[in-house]
Amino acid sequence: MHGSQPCDVEFWFEFGSNYSYLSAMRIEDAAQQLAVRVVWKPFLLGPILRALGMQTSPFVLQKEKGAYVWRDMERQCRKYRLRWQRPSTFPRVSVLPLRVALIGAGEPWIGAFCRRVMELNFVLDQDINQADRLASILTELGLAASNILTEAQAEPAKQQLRQQTEEARSRGIFGAPTFFVGTEMFWGNDRLDDALRFASQRA
Amino acid sequence: MHGSQPCDVEFWFEFGSNYSYLSAMRIEDAAQQLAVRVVWKPFLLGPILRALGMQTSPFVLQKEKGAYVWRDMERQCRKYRLRWQRPSTFPRVSVLPLRVALIGAGEPWIGAFCRRVMELNFVLDQDINQADRLASILTELGLAASNILTEAQAEPAKQQLRQQTEEARSRGIFGAPTFFVGTEMFWGNDRLDDALRFASQRA
Repeated sequence: MHGSQPCDVEFWFEFGSNYSYLSAMRIEDAAQQLAVRVVWKPFLLGPILRALGMQTSPFVLQKEKGAYVWRDMERQCRKYRLRWQRPSTFPRVSVLPLRVALIGAGEPWIGAFCRRVMELNFVLDQDINQADRLASILTELGLAASNILTEAQAEPAKQQLRQQTEEARSRGIFGAPTFFVGTEMFWGNDRLDDALRFASQRA
Repeated sequence: MHGSQPCDVEFWFEFGSNYSYLSAMRIEDAAQQLAVRVVWKPFLLGPILRALGMQTSPFVLQKEKGAYVWRDMERQCRKYRLRWQRPSTFPRVSVLPLRVALIGAGEPWIGAFCRRVMELNFVLDQDINQADRLASILTELGLAASNILTEAQAEPAKQQLRQQTEEARSRGIFGAPTFFVGTEMFWGNDRLDDALRFASQRA
C-alpha cells in the first residue's frame, strides 16, 4: 500500500445521507483521474448518531441547519452538474441496499449499483429499502438479482453490516461521507478532493 | 447593490471560531480578485449555540468531531499556507475584540485588525479579550487605541454587539463563518469561494 502504487481511499457512506450522494456520484471518476483506488465502505449512520446522542439526522434535529442544507444541496448539485430532488422522506431507511453494497463492495458493479440507489433516493424520490426496486437495479446491471437479495436478507449479511458500523464508530467516524487514507481521516464531501490528492501523493 | 457593481459579501464571523480564522485570513485577497466588496459582520457565536441547545462549541461537546477538527485545521492551514497553533483555551472569550471590530466594520483597518486578533488566538495562542493586547494591535495600525477601546467598553457598543448577534440569529445563522450575498446564505469556510463567485456573477 505504501509502495509504488497509489494508496487506496476508503469511502465510508450511507444511502440515506445527502452529502454521501454528492460523493458517491463523483468519486469513481475523480479517483480514476488520480489513479487512486476506491474501497467502498457502506455503513449505518443511525447507530453512530444515536451513540452521539442524536435520535435522527442533525438536519432534522436542527431546524436552522436543516433549512440551510436543502438550499446548499441545490447549489452543490448545480455546481457538480448532478440531478437533484429533495427527498420527501428524510433520512430514508437504507438497511437493505447497504447490505447489498457490502456484498458487492469488492465487485466491479459496486460503483454503478451505489449511484443507482443514490439516484433512487435523491433524484427519483423513491423508497430505497424495497427488494423489488433493488432487484430491478441489479438486473439492469446484468446480475443475478434474486441470489444477491437472498444473501443480503440472510443473517450473515445483517451481522456484517452491524460489524462494519461498529468499525466505523471505533475509528472515530461521526458523519457521512467520511474518507480514510491509511489512518488519515477526512470528513464530508467537501474533503473528497483533498482525500484523493492525499492518497495520490502517498503513491 | 443589484446594479452594475458587483454584490457585496457579508462575512459573519467570530474571533473564537477556528473556521472563521481560515476565512478571515483569506477573504480580502480572494474578494479583491473578483472585485467583490467585503462587509465585516462580527457577532457572538455563544448565544446562537445556546439558543440551539449547545452550552459550548460542538467541537468541545462532541469528542469525536473535536478530535477530527484539530487535525483538519492542521491540514487546512497547510493547504492555505497559514500559520497554525491549536489554542490551549477553546473557544476563547472574544467579546472585547468583537466590539472593536463592530466599531471598525466600515473602516479601512478592519481587515488588518481582524487578521491580527485571529493570529493572536490561532497562531500565538494568546488571550484575545485583553484591552492591552488589543491596544498594541490598534497602535501598530496607527490608530487612537485608547479612544477606540473606551468606546468599545461603553454601553452603546455592548448593545450593538447584542443587536448584531440577534440579527444573526434571526437570519438563520447557526455557525461561523457564514456568508450572505443578498438573502443567499453560505455556511462555512468551505463555501467562501462559492459565495464570492456568486457575488461576482450577480454584478
